[in-house]
Amino acid sequence: MAKEKKVEQITDMETDFAQWYTDICRKAELVEYASVKGFTILRPYGYAIWENMQQIMDGEFKKTGHVNVAMPVLIPESLLKKEGELVNGFAPEVAWVTMGGSEELEERLAFRPTSETMFCDHWSRVLHSYRELPMLYNQWCSVIRWEKTTRPFLRSREFWWQEGHTIHETAEEAQAETEQQLNCYADFFEKTLAIPVVRGRKTEKEKFAGAEATYTVECLMKDHKALQGATSHYFGDKFSRAYDVTFTGRDNKLQYPFQTSWGSTTRMIGAVIMAHGDNNGLVLPPKIAPVQVIIVPVAAHKPGVKEKAEELLAQISALGVRVQADFSDNSMGWKCAQHEMKGVPLRLEIGPRDIENNSCVIVRRDNGEKTAVSLDELDVQIPQLLDAVQQGLYDAAKKSLDEHIFAAGSIEEAKKLQEEHGGFIKTMWCGDEACELKMKEEAGMSSRCIPFHQEKLGETCACCGRPAKHMIYWGIAY
Amino acid sequence: MAKEKKVEQITDMETDFAQWYTDICRKAELVEYASVKGFTILRPYGYAIWENMQQIMDGEFKKTGHVNVAMPVLIPESLLKKEGELVNGFAPEVAWVTMGGSEELEERLAFRPTSETMFCDHWSRVLHSYRELPMLYNQWCSVIRWEKTTRPFLRSREFWWQEGHTIHETAEEAQAETEQQLNCYADFFEKTLAIPVVRGRKTEKEKFAGAEATYTVECLMKDHKALQGATSHYFGDKFSRAYDVTFTGRDNKLQYPFQTSWGSTTRMIGAVIMAHGDNNGLVLPPKIAPVQVIIVPVAAHKPGVKEKAEELLAQISALGVRVQADFSDNSMGWKCAQHEMKGVPLRLEIGPRDIENNSCVIVRRDNGEKTAVSLDELDVQIPQLLDAVQQGLYDAAKKSLDEHIFAAGSIEEAKKLQEEHGGFIKTMWCGDEACELKMKEEAGMSSRCIPFHQEKLGETCACCGRPAKHMIYWGIAY
Repeated sequence: MAKEKKVEQITDMETDFAQWYTDICRKAELVEYASVKGFTILRPYGYAIWENMQQIMDGEFKKTGHVNVAMPVLIPESLLKKEGELVNGFAPEVAWVTMGGSEELEERLAFRPTSETMFCDHWSRVLHSYRELPMLYNQWCSVIRWEKTTRPFLRSREFWWQEGHTIHETAEEAQAETEQQLNCYADFFEKTLAIPVVRGRKTEKEKFAGAEATYTVECLMKDHKALQGATSHYFGDKFSRAYDVTFTGRDNKLQYPFQTSWGSTTRMIGAVIMAHGDNNGLVLPPKIAPVQVIIVPVAAHKPGVKEKAEELLAQISALGVRVQADFSDNSMGWKCAQHEMKGVPLRLEIGPRDIENNSCVIVRRDNGEKTAVSLDELDVQIPQLLDAVQQGLYDAAKKSLDEHIFAAGSIEEAKKLQEEHGGFIKTMWCGDEACELKMKEEAGMSSRCIPFHQEKLGETCACCGRPAKHMIYWGIAY
Repeated sequence: MAKEKKVEQITDMETDFAQWYTDICRKAELVEYASVKGFTILRPYGYAIWENMQQIMDGEFKKTGHVNVAMPVLIPESLLKKEGELVNGFAPEVAWVTMGGSEELEERLAFRPTSETMFCDHWSRVLHSYRELPMLYNQWCSVIRWEKTTRPFLRSREFWWQEGHTIHETAEEAQAETEQQLNCYADFFEKTLAIPVVRGRKTEKEKFAGAEATYTVECLMKDHKALQGATSHYFGDKFSRAYDVTFTGRDNKLQYPFQTSWGSTTRMIGAVIMAHGDNNGLVLPPKIAPVQVIIVPVAAHKPGVKEKAEELLAQISALGVRVQADFSDNSMGWKCAQHEMKGVPLRLEIGPRDIENNSCVIVRRDNGEKTAVSLDELDVQIPQLLDAVQQGLYDAAKKSLDEHIFAAGSIEEAKKLQEEHGGFIKTMWCGDEACELKMKEEAGMSSRCIPFHQEKLGETCACCGRPAKHMIYWGIAY
């Protein structure tokens, strides 16, 4: 029995958004399931997107003085338990190594769910003086959290991420770092992933286990559900004290440094799929697309076509654009469907008639627009069209976000708006966790963030009627 | 009690090579021990060296069509056991995850010691046709092998590496890939790490568990012990059959692909330390040095010195050279010792008198040579001096290698040469494992490789006197 690879249709997003999402993950060859339940494989195309993301983020981190390190992946249970809140937050999700070779270990070791404990333990040994501060560290690695239900990119037992960990001489410096890194994420989402975000602070209920404050960038997907994009945490000196991290200060006395951490994960690939994808598949922002331009020769068997396509390949590649040509013997229809499925921003078609006219046709993936472009203008037009796709994706996502933020004065109203339109529902809030629980129970929404940009929608909490402290965003979250 | 950081002396390599090595690892701030026994932390400076290595190797892999992926870190025991030889080779060293959260797992999961099994399992699901071959995959990750005794970089329970895994339509293509990647490693060692290597094949006894053939690049350290640099394996279709990886061939029948794997690790940093280091610390080849040029202002408090140093910093940085300036208030002696310890290839000293003369002094780390360089010639001289250091390191290591390869006709002679000079001892060999065991027992040497470049030293095996099949290299290995 011969095995052959087929092009298959994906489910429409209007019919079943969850299935549409999973279909894209697999048909665009981003991920595949592994033999271990809840684990996924990042395939070459998915990993290439991640590599492009990493390269851009890593460059930004380094510009502000951050350096990369590698911490051990296993954490002794006793070390993990030194800070009570953190371990309580993560213990139910930890994978434990209990055997090394044929020997039972004396103390079981946690596969890192996050590495605050390891960084603190390290700093407790290497930090001496205020002169060495700040220490601005980051690591790229995978972590494990033993989730019960999983979905590719969004919730996976193992996921790939970067975790930044820093210590500072003063609380103010650490707070400024927390903010700086949140803004770094916001810029990355908006300028690189073309996804507009809402910046804000998490409530006490939703903040990171052990943090004094957690900041977040929140975005909306095409089904108008909310997705937490990336987070940045301020710890004060809580972990420093728990792990005995000290330094000699300017006053020649021992002090505790102030700490931050901040993380972003492969879940951002999920965000890109759900923020930009359509019923023909993935739509990639040019800045992270592994292939930015695909050249598809028309009637490639005719004299001169293949040669011209190869010439254009070299020419466009010389612009620093990631370009490929599809010389396979598949049909024109198959090729177009395939490269659309993979979200390639621009498709360049070149055939005998185009060559005669010294032109080609360029098709934009984001809106289907076709442009006849003179071959003499390619060097100018290709970068411009890539910019146009990048901007077009952002503009469409921004319009959708702006149209899906609704103000409500009561839980009932909030619930009705969510049911009718989805999106973020903004209300005033007293700051009490009981009201968060009530909103969750009655309207099915969790608090997303207390936006930095506050509006005064009224005087009283939409949930309990008592005096309001903040405006807050609610949503149904991934 | 105030904590202050001090510059400390390291042990001389002639006094205690092992201690000298460990001293450099820690005093140059490359690694630090972790709370988990046998695990190490790659500190910023050590990790920056690894990042430079990664970037160069990854670029080379991609030039020949390889793509990166990410496979799950945990492997179900049943999957690991499908190929008997591999699991027998690695089982004693596997770390096992037996609990997820508070639940005991039904099947224990191995922290990957190597990922052949995961790649095969994945390919068994995604490979269809010969048109999709070859699949040329690589991943950068960490692995765990539960070693009993550990040393930084050389033998650590967790280490960082790349593992390439490929499948091909024919045996010939897979063999060519195995060779190509071995040559890629050899080039990397010689051109980037400035370490000359001997290329060859491992004996049956020393080959990778489950491989049909293992190829290796072997090098010599400054104590004249041997170090296995990197290896490349040919598997035939053994794993394909064990994991049922099939494709429809050109003849429309199901076939098994042919497989390779190849790996290199952070142990290469250990090789650099021991191939180039001296009693003042680390000596780094410029191509992988995180800082290639350190500017040290002399009498920086005098007018114009700091400004000039900053000007040179900008000028040299614009050449694409990794340059830093040390404006700390440490003494000149402390600074020089510190940057020597860290192996910075060039130190540029600039003081008031230099500025008057429109010149500076550049000191080479590898041989201590000082050159007065006109500031007008910096743009030419800096790249030239960096090339000179790179070449100088290679030449010195090559000379030492050439002077430490000795031919022997008997075990006794081999033993005597090893005891007197160290290095590689070459002999003729019958190909029998019994003779390898005898050489190990009587002369304390293991077989390093059967070099590609064969010489006919005689007719008979140096160990047993029977007819010889190969010339083989012996050594005391790390």
